[in-house]
Amino acid sequence: MKKKNAGSKFNNVVVAQSGGPSMVINGSLMGVVCGCRDAGKKHFGKILGARHGIAGILGRDYHEFGKVTDDEAIAIARTPSSALGSCRLKPTAEDCRKIFEEFKRLEVGYFFYIGGNDSADAARIVAEEAEKDGYPLVVYHVPKTIDCDLRSCDHTPGYGSAANFVARAFMGDDLDNRALGGCKIDVVMGRDAGFLTAASALARTYKGAGPHLIYLPEVPFSVEGFVKDVQAAMKKHGRCVVAVSEGIRDKKGVSIGAQFAGGEKDSHGNVQMSGTGALGDHLAKIVKARAGVKRVRADTFGYLQRSFPGVQSASDLQEALTAGGMAVACALGAASGNAECPTKGTIGIQRKKAAKGAYEAEFLPLPIQDAAKYTRSLPKNFIAKNGHDVTSAFVEWAKPLVGELPPIAVL
Amino acid sequence: MKKKNAGSKFNNVVVAQSGGPSMVINGSLMGVVCGCRDAGKKHFGKILGARHGIAGILGRDYHEFGKVTDDEAIAIARTPSSALGSCRLKPTAEDCRKIFEEFKRLEVGYFFYIGGNDSADAARIVAEEAEKDGYPLVVYHVPKTIDCDLRSCDHTPGYGSAANFVARAFMGDDLDNRALGGCKIDVVMGRDAGFLTAASALARTYKGAGPHLIYLPEVPFSVEGFVKDVQAAMKKHGRCVVAVSEGIRDKKGVSIGAQFAGGEKDSHGNVQMSGTGALGDHLAKIVKARAGVKRVRADTFGYLQRSFPGVQSASDLQEALTAGGMAVACALGAASGNAECPTKGTIGIQRKKAAKGAYEAEFLPLPIQDAAKYTRSLPKNFIAKNGHDVTSAFVEWAKPLVGELPPIAVL
Repeated sequence: MKKKNAGSKFNNVVVAQSGGPSMVINGSLMGVVCGCRDAGKKHFGKILGARHGIAGILGRDYHEFGKVTDDEAIAIARTPSSALGSCRLKPTAEDCRKIFEEFKRLEVGYFFYIGGNDSADAARIVAEEAEKDGYPLVVYHVPKTIDCDLRSCDHTPGYGSAANFVARAFMGDDLDNRALGGCKIDVVMGRDAGFLTAASALARTYKGAGPHLIYLPEVPFSVEGFVKDVQAAMKKHGRCVVAVSEGIRDKKGVSIGAQFAGGEKDSHGNVQMSGTGALGDHLAKIVKARAGVKRVRADTFGYLQRSFPGVQSASDLQEALTAGGMAVACALGAASGNAECPTKGTIGIQRKKAAKGAYEAEFLPLPIQDAAKYTRSLPKNFIAKNGHDVTSAFVEWAKPLVGELPPIAVL
Repeated sequence: MKKKNAGSKFNNVVVAQSGGPSMVINGSLMGVVCGCRDAGKKHFGKILGARHGIAGILGRDYHEFGKVTDDEAIAIARTPSSALGSCRLKPTAEDCRKIFEEFKRLEVGYFFYIGGNDSADAARIVAEEAEKDGYPLVVYHVPKTIDCDLRSCDHTPGYGSAANFVARAFMGDDLDNRALGGCKIDVVMGRDAGFLTAASALARTYKGAGPHLIYLPEVPFSVEGFVKDVQAAMKKHGRCVVAVSEGIRDKKGVSIGAQFAGGEKDSHGNVQMSGTGALGDHLAKIVKARAGVKRVRADTFGYLQRSFPGVQSASDLQEALTAGGMAVACALGAASGNAECPTKGTIGIQRKKAAKGAYEAEFLPLPIQDAAKYTRSLPKNFIAKNGHDVTSAFVEWAKPLVGELPPIAVL
């Protein structure tokens, strides 16, 4: 059964990036661009990159992708952060009207939006408003988030590389703490979900290696418990390395870090968490005053977790490229009436139930609302019973995503 | 002319690491260990690694290096941080008496101490007290510091790799700022000297790339000037990435950051600067309140700068190994009465005046006091006239030390 979708009237493409950058979000951009290029002029006309997400459409600010060679594509894909620029903008109905006027002017029939749950929600709003207005548009969200918290994915492009950075950072920082002693607290990104903080566990490559304590947003944080945990770890190891998510909350669900972060909010209602060292400093003061530890230091890994060049996970980059290419294929499917491909879609990433030990991912079209707005948390079986560690099930799950880590040798 | 040095009575060796770890300090450790191994039993007996520097001697805590293979040595050398552990201890005359009793018990004739200016000073004190006491000891300091501020060296093992981390960090963070805009402030290590902060300039690989402003301890910092500089950069680039040394001082020479750091001091009198995000947060508040910038973020790179695995500079690691090996050769020279080799020595590293463009370092024995206690600053010709940048002379000087950086591609 084939039905010609209304989207076939226009065949120009707008692609954009949104939300926090990642180390491989340009992989997905190049996946979309090369996917359209390879499908050919029969299917796709101009490929326009809107600068700074939806803001670039509203402001008529584009990069036109001409003949992109594979070498150029790989060079961009290997470069961290969002090559087109980004934004954190939830479009209003009024914004959508302006977007459709602009799309009509440019004869745009396809819109690809690369980002996390808020970006998926922005794309969903655009897609639903287009339908209301009768504007013929195929919309695909391409998943990206270092937080790994999309409901539509086992894991998301961007996570593996950020997790690689976090694991390396803890490998090094644990050795630093081993040399000079005391308690070291490192604050890791992840507003709602503990996947990235959990990746610190991959740093443990020898007996007694840190992090010795891991605090996740999924487990209520109590100052009393924290002080006791640190004291116990100091007693056991003579030192203590602590991984803390920036998103830790008390038993009422109130964020511990938000109070220090100045209260800045984006248009999706998210409070700014990163870009300040205040939570780490607060926890360090507690350990100094109440756990009786003399040498206490805190670092906040900050934006390096999503932008540091040279630590891309190979599988993460490959999956970012594939997710972009898959979005193009599904958009074409939708335009040609393939019932499996929604016209308002996202790309789900699932893990194949392969032979034991083998890792393989599969990519599939899903309704865009499956990725939009709400996030998922670290599954219960990934959280240790004591509430301040992860399980071996998490470590096995994460390993193939994170890729190669440098070898560590101790005396 | 040969004279048998009193040191020949004992031929066991103690080697230790002191001060802040680096990414290649284990290279120098392995340079010493393999140097002694290769000189053979005729010259050196047991090789004892004291754990946590001088504290390990006072506490009789050793790792005995047995038959170390080249593969084992390379694995340790490639691992960041101090494999033997470290300390920040200035020995008293009383400590020295205990050290000599212990050395006598262990029949130690050679003492190698790997570290920065404070560690050189500690080794100098041990060496001078040994001479006073008539204890036969050859002492060699092996240079190490990510700050690059030893007076006896053009550059120090540890600097190139830390500078590589800093350059990468700014490459990524500049792209992140390019995507989301606003002002980003990054605080870099370096209590007294701006070499490491200056390395941020190596991140500039395309027109308009940040950091757009670089603040060094060598140039008095004024809040008014800073606010004006940020406003000018925002006007020029539409965004602004700032590199700030943790050691910036006002015109009276008072540290800006020390007021936030809790006042903790080590036994050399150094105030703790790292391990807190307070200076960055302080500067971010200023930019928000006074420069009229809406989106302002601050990160403090912290201990990752000296411990992150996988970004060792190849030349830095090689020079760390060579410095260790050279210390052994010079210690042997001293013991056999070679007048060029002091019995209380350090290894100077100088740049050969080679053919233009070619880089080569030379290693030479110097009196230990040449490295001890006092530090050097960034030379004037490395600091831009405007006071908030470095010169191309600095960039050319730094490039061969920092090694390979990942390629960056922008649209």
